Amino acid sequence: MPVVAKAAGLGNPLARRAVLGLGAALTGSLALAARPGNTAPAPASPPADAAWSQSIGAGVVDRPYGKPADTEAGVIRRNVPWLTAGTESSVSFSPLQDLQGIITPNGLFFERHHAGRPDIDPAQHRLLIHGLVERPLVLTMKDILRFPSVSRIHFIECPANGGMEWRGAQLNSLQFNHGMISCAEWTGVRLSTLLEEVGVGKAAQWAMVEGADGAHMNRSLPLDKCLDDCLVVYAQNGEALRPEQGYPLRLVVPGWEGNVNIKWLRRIKLGARPWYSREETSKYTDLMPDGSARGFTWSIDAKSVITFPCPEKPPGGPGLYEIRGLAWSGSGKVTRVDVSVDGGVNWQVAQLHEPVLSKALSRFTLPWRWDGRPALLQSRVIDDTGYVQPTIAQLRQQRGSNSVYHNNSIQTWQVKPDGSVFDVQLG
Amino acid sequence: MPVVAKAAGLGNPLARRAVLGLGAALTGSLALAARPGNTAPAPASPPADAAWSQSIGAGVVDRPYGKPADTEAGVIRRNVPWLTAGTESSVSFSPLQDLQGIITPNGLFFERHHAGRPDIDPAQHRLLIHGLVERPLVLTMKDILRFPSVSRIHFIECPANGGMEWRGAQLNSLQFNHGMISCAEWTGVRLSTLLEEVGVGKAAQWAMVEGADGAHMNRSLPLDKCLDDCLVVYAQNGEALRPEQGYPLRLVVPGWEGNVNIKWLRRIKLGARPWYSREETSKYTDLMPDGSARGFTWSIDAKSVITFPCPEKPPGGPGLYEIRGLAWSGSGKVTRVDVSVDGGVNWQVAQLHEPVLSKALSRFTLPWRWDGRPALLQSRVIDDTGYVQPTIAQLRQQRGSNSVYHNNSIQTWQVKPDGSVFDVQLG
Repeated sequence: MPVVAKAAGLGNPLARRAVLGLGAALTGSLALAARPGNTAPAPASPPADAAWSQSIGAGVVDRPYGKPADTEAGVIRRNVPWLTAGTESSVSFSPLQDLQGIITPNGLFFERHHAGRPDIDPAQHRLLIHGLVERPLVLTMKDILRFPSVSRIHFIECPANGGMEWRGAQLNSLQFNHGMISCAEWTGVRLSTLLEEVGVGKAAQWAMVEGADGAHMNRSLPLDKCLDDCLVVYAQNGEALRPEQGYPLRLVVPGWEGNVNIKWLRRIKLGARPWYSREETSKYTDLMPDGSARGFTWSIDAKSVITFPCPEKPPGGPGLYEIRGLAWSGSGKVTRVDVSVDGGVNWQVAQLHEPVLSKALSRFTLPWRWDGRPALLQSRVIDDTGYVQPTIAQLRQQRGSNSVYHNNSIQTWQVKPDGSVFDVQLG
Repeated sequence: MPVVAKAAGLGNPLARRAVLGLGAALTGSLALAARPGNTAPAPASPPADAAWSQSIGAGVVDRPYGKPADTEAGVIRRNVPWLTAGTESSVSFSPLQDLQGIITPNGLFFERHHAGRPDIDPAQHRLLIHGLVERPLVLTMKDILRFPSVSRIHFIECPANGGMEWRGAQLNSLQFNHGMISCAEWTGVRLSTLLEEVGVGKAAQWAMVEGADGAHMNRSLPLDKCLDDCLVVYAQNGEALRPEQGYPLRLVVPGWEGNVNIKWLRRIKLGARPWYSREETSKYTDLMPDGSARGFTWSIDAKSVITFPCPEKPPGGPGLYEIRGLAWSGSGKVTRVDVSVDGGVNWQVAQLHEPVLSKALSRFTLPWRWDGRPALLQSRVIDDTGYVQPTIAQLRQQRGSNSVYHNNSIQTWQVKPDGSVFDVQLG
């Protein structure tokens, strides 16, 4: 369906379209045009029907489970080959530059494995709950599906998201710097329901949660959090969990670092003290400038990032754009997002889009007329605790630059006059 | 990981677990058990590690776009072969019996084609807006992506959903009786934004919306609805629309019958009168008992259905269950769902789960202790206009039984003593 581009001959219609000011945005597409054969007055050079409008398409039986269009083949999770020694203990990043809204489709939800993705038979899978409990239990998947169910929309973020930027801007990419966050609707059983079923022992203060993967991934969680909002989850965005996400059963610990959201969950043990597992001593701690280490840094501090423009999706040239981004907080709801186009000198309040849910991704947008001069785009979120997203300089003042985890600093995208976009750090 | 089932030997722990009353639900899974090699006290006959817990799994690079577990291969959209002459002008139904929450994953979103699923090149796709407008426009996908964006969670339901039951209970299936409804987060541009861009002519009262499929599917929409909440959509649950759902561009008309949510949208023409297209004269009208026909019956009246138990997912035997279901209204929000287990003699108020969004699916649940005697399960929704979901007898009093569309009557599931579940109609 070729289009007739005759903008120049239409008596400058661009000038009239001041309402939205899109003007130059619509280059190449302005035309008085109509499909031949319809009842509309047909102006000069109407576009012809495309082949797909003159034929019968595919039936409803060839894809009982659907898949994306072939032309979307580039929208995939991506791995950084040099990041880890192998692909089994590695990560693949969500392509945030291609995503819209707050729900991440299951096929593009980021993944992080410590011993690869196990292939579990749900009929054989068991969840053991024991330790300081009154009635130890082993539950089948069938059992778990019978408990009272809840559905919640929450993000999960790996605390190493952005971790490569502690010492400087290194990866010129939205996907690789921020793609270890995704958001889904989770359905399962409240962990508190299961703990009520087994009876929490009086001395219990902590829970050890463990996966059925080869790493036996395990972490310690304070009992208070377990009884607050943790979920033992079997479904993601309506369907069964994907294997990458913990099929058939995972823990979701709303707002807390991804690592504690144990996938392939097989064991919950209550105890009086934390276990100090490998994943909360050797890993998932941050070395401070004074030589001490921050540990048990569970909660994801409020963070935001502009997803358009970004290195992968630069503006095409001067004109009016919509700056788009995502904001989130592990402490609750996002209350405000500010956007700067001059590296933090001036700020404007962005529009925050409903629904704004607790511990979920929220969308923000702001119209931006780019004049073609260099620009420094930033976003800064404030959550309902009053916490303000810091700059990387502020974070380094507190924590030095030896950390790997919990870099929630303001991202700066430099827009160059040629329209390309780069990952930079200021001051 | 075999499990040790010793419920009978544990001093009747079932009796103690009265809190949730699950009791018999947990047959076959009760055990004092622990994984060998951990630090827990190992009771008799601890289950051995499964193979997947003793090995390294797959890496992160083999599935850049994820897919469900192989053991979920039965969770698919299904077609009824005898329903239509061919598969190109047909429907495949969402497997509601396998779904949780309110989001339908894109691979399982129901589909309805009138001339098959076209395979459209987004680079060549155009949207023409013309007719009674001040400045006709042809927009590329690139243009459309630059307009101010919105994301909304809405259901889409084919008005023929349940249409085969007007004359009696015929299909013993949740999927085939109710699976022409799905719900997603849609992202795109408000139609009002595009109409503001072209300038609505003073005489315009209607819009004709048309698809680029071989059927050139088209419908007339009142301008008021277009300017209210219609969306021109390019993304579904975060990613680009699937081909089955209108890739690269579709209309979403919140709360209105699926047929007007034109897929593969290529044309919007404003006019003074409706077009009376095939799809709003020969089809998508209902023959009344007096020989007249209801037409332009756009809005989806409030409806609900119990998704568990259902014919595909019967209860396993007497015990405590959670009745689960979905409710929705094309007029706004669901305010209450009542559930009956005795065919509408007595009703209980079900729990309605957040988020309850306008013109979206909402979840409801109610605990149910099945004593093993025959039961008749029903749900009845009330929306924020005060509308109460009718019985099929009430609907037939108004409309006879010659209709195909807009059967939003209360579904009755008959539970037999052997635990099987059947689609029945009462009175």
